Amino acid sequence: MISLATSLVNDKVRKNVNACLDENRIGGGRFIKEFEDKVAKYMGVKHAIAVCNGSMADIVALATLKAQYPNKKEVIVPALTFIAQTNAVLINGLKPVFVDITEDFQMGEFKTNKNTLAVFPVHLLGKRCEIKSDVPIIEDACEAFGVWNKRDMATFSFFPSHTITTGEGGMIITNDDIHAEIARQLMNHGRKSDKILEKFHFDYLGFNGKMSNVLASIGCAVVEEADSVIKKRKENVELYNKLLKKDWYAESPHCYPYLYKTSQERDESLIRLSENGIEARKLFSCVPKTEYNFKGSYSIAEKIGKVGLFVPVHQDLSDDDIKKVVSLL
Amino acid sequence: MISLATSLVNDKVRKNVNACLDENRIGGGRFIKEFEDKVAKYMGVKHAIAVCNGSMADIVALATLKAQYPNKKEVIVPALTFIAQTNAVLINGLKPVFVDITEDFQMGEFKTNKNTLAVFPVHLLGKRCEIKSDVPIIEDACEAFGVWNKRDMATFSFFPSHTITTGEGGMIITNDDIHAEIARQLMNHGRKSDKILEKFHFDYLGFNGKMSNVLASIGCAVVEEADSVIKKRKENVELYNKLLKKDWYAESPHCYPYLYKTSQERDESLIRLSENGIEARKLFSCVPKTEYNFKGSYSIAEKIGKVGLFVPVHQDLSDDDIKKVVSLL
Repeated sequence: MISLATSLVNDKVRKNVNACLDENRIGGGRFIKEFEDKVAKYMGVKHAIAVCNGSMADIVALATLKAQYPNKKEVIVPALTFIAQTNAVLINGLKPVFVDITEDFQMGEFKTNKNTLAVFPVHLLGKRCEIKSDVPIIEDACEAFGVWNKRDMATFSFFPSHTITTGEGGMIITNDDIHAEIARQLMNHGRKSDKILEKFHFDYLGFNGKMSNVLASIGCAVVEEADSVIKKRKENVELYNKLLKKDWYAESPHCYPYLYKTSQERDESLIRLSENGIEARKLFSCVPKTEYNFKGSYSIAEKIGKVGLFVPVHQDLSDDDIKKVVSLL
Repeated sequence: MISLATSLVNDKVRKNVNACLDENRIGGGRFIKEFEDKVAKYMGVKHAIAVCNGSMADIVALATLKAQYPNKKEVIVPALTFIAQTNAVLINGLKPVFVDITEDFQMGEFKTNKNTLAVFPVHLLGKRCEIKSDVPIIEDACEAFGVWNKRDMATFSFFPSHTITTGEGGMIITNDDIHAEIARQLMNHGRKSDKILEKFHFDYLGFNGKMSNVLASIGCAVVEEADSVIKKRKENVELYNKLLKKDWYAESPHCYPYLYKTSQERDESLIRLSENGIEARKLFSCVPKTEYNFKGSYSIAEKIGKVGLFVPVHQDLSDDDIKKVVSLL
């Protein structure tokens, strides 16, 4: 089986997890702060807030802006992305304004207005999305640990198919003290504070976004390997490029994309790969047209959604694994 | 320190957690199904669906009904409860219709209408809320593992202060095949299925509610201790009753409630307990008036919210611990 995901379980992971058990701290605990500090240091950012998964990171990041600008209802999002990014907008009761992507997986042109709460690009497949805007930018880097354009907030996911994994987990980063303070409340039911008389009062409509100490303890160990993981994933991308005569590049590779001429060819390939023990996926879909029924035309997103797939690039693949994948594409 | 929460870390917890590490399965994995099966067997229910926490269980359970009855927008909820229950209604874009509680922590009288999606009682503090209605009932049993009136759905939380704990975790139970199928989709981003060509298509606006295999593996061990935990908690409640000359009863005790004459007395007691190393909490608050600004009058919920607190009853308390708590109330 050649899987899209892998997890790093080294001696430090074992030591940390068993420390949680020894200390009887499986809910809250010291590793959460330690994991946040390590990610903050790695990213060179002031605040890092651990949450239960990347979808929750997206939801809370948007809710953080919504709490500050309650009259702004629109969020600019790419038409091709994983559904959880769009759903984070909808769960917040906000309106997604979809923008087509470019052939190079960047966001196409968009216009903001006085109702625009945020621009919400995604570093899809681990490829940096370059973006400029005067309105707040939240970068969905769930598939791209380490990538950040240093704007308002960014979100990471630590799901097994992503760069570093805690099983389930996510993180919000920001340099803004107010964003950080509100996000910490919002991921803890909107709780006012942990002071004894304030603990059961709530300033905002919040969520339970808490990460377990056990999973954070895994994060403390694996974040130390992020550079070597990303390096090996880039080498794997290079091997794909060489074998396929392509030039895909991603700062923090999540997978390797491959486009067919037709939807039928793509689907046949997915089945062929699966029958040969290789996990591959559709390259998402044009969310506003395929998953929901929004108006507008998103020709590139629709095309890629129909003919694209992606295959594994993770750090535990051998060269022979990659050659096998390529032979079956 | 006498804490409100405790966690059970026995040899089986250690063995299961280390099996997840040995098998390199920290995200999805076999313990999730095993935990679901064990809870289903314990409850005598057909379906049990593990999720990341009790708040998510509430959100997904409501969303399951909403997906089936999209035109029904109102949910009957108690005025005194933990905020996450109310927020599950609001996060789903539904309208909470608050009902005052009785002095005995039951739901007061309420009326349903053609817009009522669900009645959503809570087994607050582990005390069974008896309820009858012709519309679907979702029972929030987050604080009351094991309690269920065998209606449409119920939700559990495995947070450390609750009966059995996985650190963070939750569960939805139901005997209804359609509820179960939709809930499984909704807690996995609304995903159509795990089939290769359907995996990246989504029928519903969903959430990431997935539980990690690691935390589920803890659940597999601790659910076996549920009966003994509940038995010991009931004994602790009996000791409080004896010392305080009260008659509190809960099927699955979460904590011991204590009402003062004034808010000031209650707050002074909270601080006194805290200064003596005893964790206690405000007995929630009247959500529609204190946390939000809804219309209506909820006199019992408002009174209890102002003068109530709760103290620990968990299974690791000694008789001396309880005597100390009582001496400081």
